[in-house]
Amino acid sequence: MKNILLTIEYDGSGFSGWQRQPGVRTVQGTLEQALSKVTGETVRINGTSRTDAGVHALGQRATFSGNFGIPAERIPLAVNNLLRGRGMKPGTDADVRIVRAEEKPLSFHARFASKGKKYRYIIRNERELPVFCRNYCCHVPEPLNVERMNRASEYVCGTHDFACFQAAGGTPGESTVRTIWNLQIEERYTESGRDVVIEVSGDGFLYNMVRILSGTLIEAGLGKRSPESLEEVIRSGDRRQAGFTAPPGGLYLVEVYYGGEDQQTFVG
Amino acid sequence: MKNILLTIEYDGSGFSGWQRQPGVRTVQGTLEQALSKVTGETVRINGTSRTDAGVHALGQRATFSGNFGIPAERIPLAVNNLLRGRGMKPGTDADVRIVRAEEKPLSFHARFASKGKKYRYIIRNERELPVFCRNYCCHVPEPLNVERMNRASEYVCGTHDFACFQAAGGTPGESTVRTIWNLQIEERYTESGRDVVIEVSGDGFLYNMVRILSGTLIEAGLGKRSPESLEEVIRSGDRRQAGFTAPPGGLYLVEVYYGGEDQQTFVG
Repeated sequence: MKNILLTIEYDGSGFSGWQRQPGVRTVQGTLEQALSKVTGETVRINGTSRTDAGVHALGQRATFSGNFGIPAERIPLAVNNLLRGRGMKPGTDADVRIVRAEEKPLSFHARFASKGKKYRYIIRNERELPVFCRNYCCHVPEPLNVERMNRASEYVCGTHDFACFQAAGGTPGESTVRTIWNLQIEERYTESGRDVVIEVSGDGFLYNMVRILSGTLIEAGLGKRSPESLEEVIRSGDRRQAGFTAPPGGLYLVEVYYGGEDQQTFVG
Repeated sequence: MKNILLTIEYDGSGFSGWQRQPGVRTVQGTLEQALSKVTGETVRINGTSRTDAGVHALGQRATFSGNFGIPAERIPLAVNNLLRGRGMKPGTDADVRIVRAEEKPLSFHARFASKGKKYRYIIRNERELPVFCRNYCCHVPEPLNVERMNRASEYVCGTHDFACFQAAGGTPGESTVRTIWNLQIEERYTESGRDVVIEVSGDGFLYNMVRILSGTLIEAGLGKRSPESLEEVIRSGDRRQAGFTAPPGGLYLVEVYYGGEDQQTFVG
């Protein structure tokens, strides 16, 4: 019996989210099909984060176990070759790719072992949105004040009850207290224009938390709310006090932490 | 009677090329449908370049004429709003966008008036290809020597018979002499890795010329042919002496020149 930990990258544009569902194309379903072919067994994988439709991942993690012969290090190439040509255009590279596969003790579970995660949210802050960005950012045509967004972010860092940033659909009765280790907002200039990039890491995130937090920070950056209002929003525990849910295409699951990483990146 | 010159940006990934064809989604067909709705007339547009399936454009140009009332400057927003939601995912931005519309004399024709064009070809030169790049570059995993590619490019600049770089399917009997004004190869470092970018401008291009030229330059950069061999390849006029046809996703139509531009960009 082997237990394998996968690191997975995907472009969420062409998927109905992570979670397997009958009749629609999902990341989990697509990977399970390919892994089942490669291993000769019926594979079921456990992902760290059930990302929504349109959300991307640079470093999603998932585990699966079985009695297959193929060594862990051969899995990425075998699966990626199988996925190639299954994408939207035959013959081209797929929109999901296994970056790494490593053997872990049988008790290791990608989600339960996770100590935290890092997400990125990309905002294109230009009057016009190039067609190439349409699935990969949130378009905000009015100028964003990054200094105001950073001031607002100070109220978010640390351990708080983040019920205000939870969409309906979270598990009822579960604690909504989480610790945000680090939250930074930076401008980045690309050839096609200015992006404002939010990076946030913490020990866990509620349902839609990063998208609602990003929407709230955007409102602070546009002057629609004060940076200081974030304190009261969090204290209220009221979803209606927080901002809009920023669209899925701007969101990237960057990294999942298991505690063995460089402390620098781990604590931000 | 009005004659309108459009500047058009598109992501070629979801189109079967520029040219209208029954039963498939093309850029020309998509735009003609939207323009016909907006003007209330049956619109037929003339594009400057009939780009192939998968090829992108930052600055395609096209003209159309008619007796419609809508002023030129209102056309972009009206068409883009109509196209929005017609893309692959309803409610999101479309993969084609009118950047500008301007009125021209009736005799002005986007293709016949063109004095030249600039194309870009993007090569991702890293061992691994991120999924996000799959439709937007050519993946070359082995290291490319940019200095060798630039040396090869010197044989291409100037006025030559470029029959060696013409794919079958060109118009027989037409001259294959063209003038390349400028050809430059540069490295660019993005957050996700190293790109090698070819930029080429000239008075005209044969069918698949930029893709075959790019394939030949890639072979020079990989050490599969000498930079000096380009001289003989061009002299031979033989397609079989040139390199492979680099894939469409790496190619961008950047700009069409009509002669009124800044001389700097016009002559490179």
